[in-house]
Amino acid sequence: MNLAVIGLGRMGSGLARNLLRGGHQVTVYNRTRSKADALVHEGATVAASPAEAARDADAAITMLADDQAVMETVLGSDGAAAGLAAGAVHISCSTISTKLARRLTDEHAARRQSYLSAPVFGRPEAAEAKKLVVVPAGPAGVVQRCQPVFDAIGRATFVAGAEPWQANAVKLCGNFMIASMIECFGEATATLRKAGVDPHLFLEAMNALFASPVMANYGGMIADDQFEPVGFALKLGLKDVRLLLETADECAAPMPVASVVRDHFLSAMALGQQDADWASVARIAARDAGL
Amino acid sequence: MNLAVIGLGRMGSGLARNLLRGGHQVTVYNRTRSKADALVHEGATVAASPAEAARDADAAITMLADDQAVMETVLGSDGAAAGLAAGAVHISCSTISTKLARRLTDEHAARRQSYLSAPVFGRPEAAEAKKLVVVPAGPAGVVQRCQPVFDAIGRATFVAGAEPWQANAVKLCGNFMIASMIECFGEATATLRKAGVDPHLFLEAMNALFASPVMANYGGMIADDQFEPVGFALKLGLKDVRLLLETADECAAPMPVASVVRDHFLSAMALGQQDADWASVARIAARDAGL
Amino acid sequence: MNLAVIGLGRMGSGLARNLLRGGHQVTVYNRTRSKADALVHEGATVAASPAEAARDADAAITMLADDQAVMETVLGSDGAAAGLAAGAVHISCSTISTKLARRLTDEHAARRQSYLSAPVFGRPEAAEAKKLVVVPAGPAGVVQRCQPVFDAIGRATFVAGAEPWQANAVKLCGNFMIASMIECFGEATATLRKAGVDPHLFLEAMNALFASPVMANYGGMIADDQFEPVGFALKLGLKDVRLLLETADECAAPMPVASVVRDHFLSAMALGQQDADWASVARIAARDAGL
Amino acid sequence: MNLAVIGLGRMGSGLARNLLRGGHQVTVYNRTRSKADALVHEGATVAASPAEAARDADAAITMLADDQAVMETVLGSDGAAAGLAAGAVHISCSTISTKLARRLTDEHAARRQSYLSAPVFGRPEAAEAKKLVVVPAGPAGVVQRCQPVFDAIGRATFVAGAEPWQANAVKLCGNFMIASMIECFGEATATLRKAGVDPHLFLEAMNALFASPVMANYGGMIADDQFEPVGFALKLGLKDVRLLLETADECAAPMPVASVVRDHFLSAMALGQQDADWASVARIAARDAGL
Repeated sequence: MNLAVIGLGRMGSGLARNLLRGGHQVTVYNRTRSKADALVHEGATVAASPAEAARDADAAITMLADDQAVMETVLGSDGAAAGLAAGAVHISCSTISTKLARRLTDEHAARRQSYLSAPVFGRPEAAEAKKLVVVPAGPAGVVQRCQPVFDAIGRATFVAGAEPWQANAVKLCGNFMIASMIECFGEATATLRKAGVDPHLFLEAMNALFASPVMANYGGMIADDQFEPVGFALKLGLKDVRLLLETADECAAPMPVASVVRDHFLSAMALGQQDADWASVARIAARDAGL
Repeated sequence: MNLAVIGLGRMGSGLARNLLRGGHQVTVYNRTRSKADALVHEGATVAASPAEAARDADAAITMLADDQAVMETVLGSDGAAAGLAAGAVHISCSTISTKLARRLTDEHAARRQSYLSAPVFGRPEAAEAKKLVVVPAGPAGVVQRCQPVFDAIGRATFVAGAEPWQANAVKLCGNFMIASMIECFGEATATLRKAGVDPHLFLEAMNALFASPVMANYGGMIADDQFEPVGFALKLGLKDVRLLLETADECAAPMPVASVVRDHFLSAMALGQQDADWASVARIAARDAGL
Repeated sequence: MNLAVIGLGRMGSGLARNLLRGGHQVTVYNRTRSKADALVHEGATVAASPAEAARDADAAITMLADDQAVMETVLGSDGAAAGLAAGAVHISCSTISTKLARRLTDEHAARRQSYLSAPVFGRPEAAEAKKLVVVPAGPAGVVQRCQPVFDAIGRATFVAGAEPWQANAVKLCGNFMIASMIECFGEATATLRKAGVDPHLFLEAMNALFASPVMANYGGMIADDQFEPVGFALKLGLKDVRLLLETADECAAPMPVASVVRDHFLSAMALGQQDADWASVARIAARDAGL
Repeated sequence: MNLAVIGLGRMGSGLARNLLRGGHQVTVYNRTRSKADALVHEGATVAASPAEAARDADAAITMLADDQAVMETVLGSDGAAAGLAAGAVHISCSTISTKLARRLTDEHAARRQSYLSAPVFGRPEAAEAKKLVVVPAGPAGVVQRCQPVFDAIGRATFVAGAEPWQANAVKLCGNFMIASMIECFGEATATLRKAGVDPHLFLEAMNALFASPVMANYGGMIADDQFEPVGFALKLGLKDVRLLLETADECAAPMPVASVVRDHFLSAMALGQQDADWASVARIAARDAGL
């Protein structure tokens, strides 16, 4: 397929590279051009604007930081929507609000373009290694048409539904499952540290019980009280739980644990942890126990 | 070793069987004698009281329902403590309060007996299959002396510390990690159901992400909204989170997610779910969302 | 003073009437004109648009439902900002977000107009009876200049600070104090009803203890389980707690009780209570207890 | 009436003094005898044990610190129950658990004595000034018989029900209403302080709105960040919220705000505030906001 990849942070660069490896034609765009140029020797063409990148694409994939970046890059002048042909698809892989996903659905429909939300689970290394879990949603025919894209970037694809925003809801709930596991591990180890128990002992027992790489990874950071290198910054974790709570509000569904997580992220922000890994939210439970 | 196993529910029977298979001499006691008799053809000797079972044992293992049962069976007249020789060990595998563990430590010390807490993680099938995770705590020498017991019943042993109650704290925190995962999965799927997303889709994505048998098991029950057969009754789950909150209180460590879990278990009790599997607490989050 | 009052719901009509009684010249505007006409015989002049109402005013007072209504009425074409003279003041009495208050501050500054937030505490009857509590914020000189307005509409004025949005933060926190009292009274009476205690007995004891008309009023509705006539609709209560949580987020200040209140309002929405009095949120605590 | 007052802390001494002023015969007992002797010149007779104090009493009133003290003083050897005549009444004014109230009901019934719970609302100054709010519960005839006692010590009496423990439930819920108001005032002022608003301004507005001496008192302490002199120690506040959560558990009624309050009291304990006034729990909300 003829594809555009817009937004070349660590995630987006991984996507672009795997799409190139998969034999697709890829035009790339990034605000800071050097990251685009780095992909030229792997076969990418560099565009000067999102609109230009999207011009001849069957599908334009965006992988951007937040709602604000997506709105500017897609709906701004020289944005991807301005360049995309009628009948072509915008695939948004970014973690954005369900509200923006609904707006994008409408904006693209008004331009006779298609729109899919296709957020991904996985860290930058997973993006690089083609090990993402992809959760697309949108009209069945469009999802099917884009399957080669999902195959090229991930190890598994799960279709969330016929409305694009449903995929964003799934992504936000998935991040909540991780965030709440972090929070709970933090609460448990705070109690155990006050009981004189080494958190590493607890981690070993939990690894034997849960056998989950997610718990092994974050539990390890918490047991070590070591939150660098940063895989996912705490301020982004807070952004995601905010978006989740907005979605839950739209659905009139209370999520009390999500509220606890949000409150602890806020405390962590107040204490200056915004750029530490989001697992450092565990320090709040420790602090609340006087540690 | 010469061992006693007191309390022959599904967990205790599994323990006794594996100890016999491991070549130990095992005397068993159960309030309802038929369960003890069932082990005779596997080589067990049946005792008429906890005291009698413990009489000649190097170690007496108790696996009972709750604090009340342990107090009666161990400290009552004809209880295990009355029979156990000076120098012998009581190994309590039950999920009991840290407070009772400290009391048992003192009671046995006064009788010049040793005491270990050694709670286990795993369902009855795991007990049967020698796949428990064992978390003993107590004086290092005593733990070491009892290692053959742990080897005979489990697949892994993690020593929590030198004070028996520390193992109970670890057990309660481990159960909290499971309970909170159940609660969070319930909250997420309540929101997603209101968003029109099939919880099975969410479960598949989460299984791809977490790869944990715990989530696969409970997530499956929740996605199916099917809480039988009952692996662990909700009223016992509530008992455990109560004990956890008591321990956290002793440690002056707030655990806000544990409080949320407790509150939802209470609602489930109020609605008559006490005998359903504890994963049915997910129905409270659904109900709070108007489902 | 030469004043405009824009937005003539029950609150705004009360304000306009008291300003007329106070001897001020008042031009009024309301989307549904009949409510404006009703004030003519009390001396008001009717304008055809917010801009026209604000044209010759020293101060234009807005009393509108929410952020959306304020944005349209003030910043839309033919909005109040378009009519207001340089040097004149916009006094926003509506319960709006701190974010919109900051935007209005900027928008008016760009037009060389002044801006005050001056939210009020009190029900429509208090507005009618000149018994509101007024909380203005903004530059000291401007607040002082508008004191005759506050004197005409309220029984007490408390200046929140030099930045207009600070008054909105105070208003949202004040509403939170009421909402949380409602929630807590609901939780207490749910427990007591299950204990067989008449909530009216509890209310009497609490009235003897707190002596607060707020508790007497809402406690009475809850004890009677009677939520009509509607003083303040539940969906507006939810709107306000949402705005509070946004403000708390901006301030990086967790408010766990506000999160509980939000969650219970959401449940009430899911159950169709949006148009009942906000005190009906007490039914959620009762329902969670199986009542 | 011929009365005994057992437990002469600041509350109990106030009770005894008002009963003497009311013309009753009063025998007093206190573990530290000097406090009993201080009442002799006001007409009290001093007893050497709780049993002796209760010997000839129509009603023996206990006002003690907690469950432990009540159990020892009433049910211990030489306890009040041992001295009280058949047909006489034990009136427990202490803030105790509903569980202990049920046990006392049974213990006294077994001795053919009557039992009432009659907890009181009010500080020591209110006890001294005969301004307590009294909440008795028990068999109607017994309550009626003891009305002269309630009249002598309080300004109002509200009968909670026919079972003594119901009065304790009311008392615990009443304390929760105060504790939650403290917590919420603390959360609100934490946000407002970060918004640059003086908490005293907020307090003034809230006093104008709520007109409650409870808010004026505790809000003043919080606005001043001044928690001495200590009216009610934080550790006792925690004790009471613990008892409330136990009662709520017995009733299968979740009280999420009570859980938040408990968690913040626990944090305050962890930080060494146990002997400060319970209003100092507001410091936890401030600390969680980075203040």
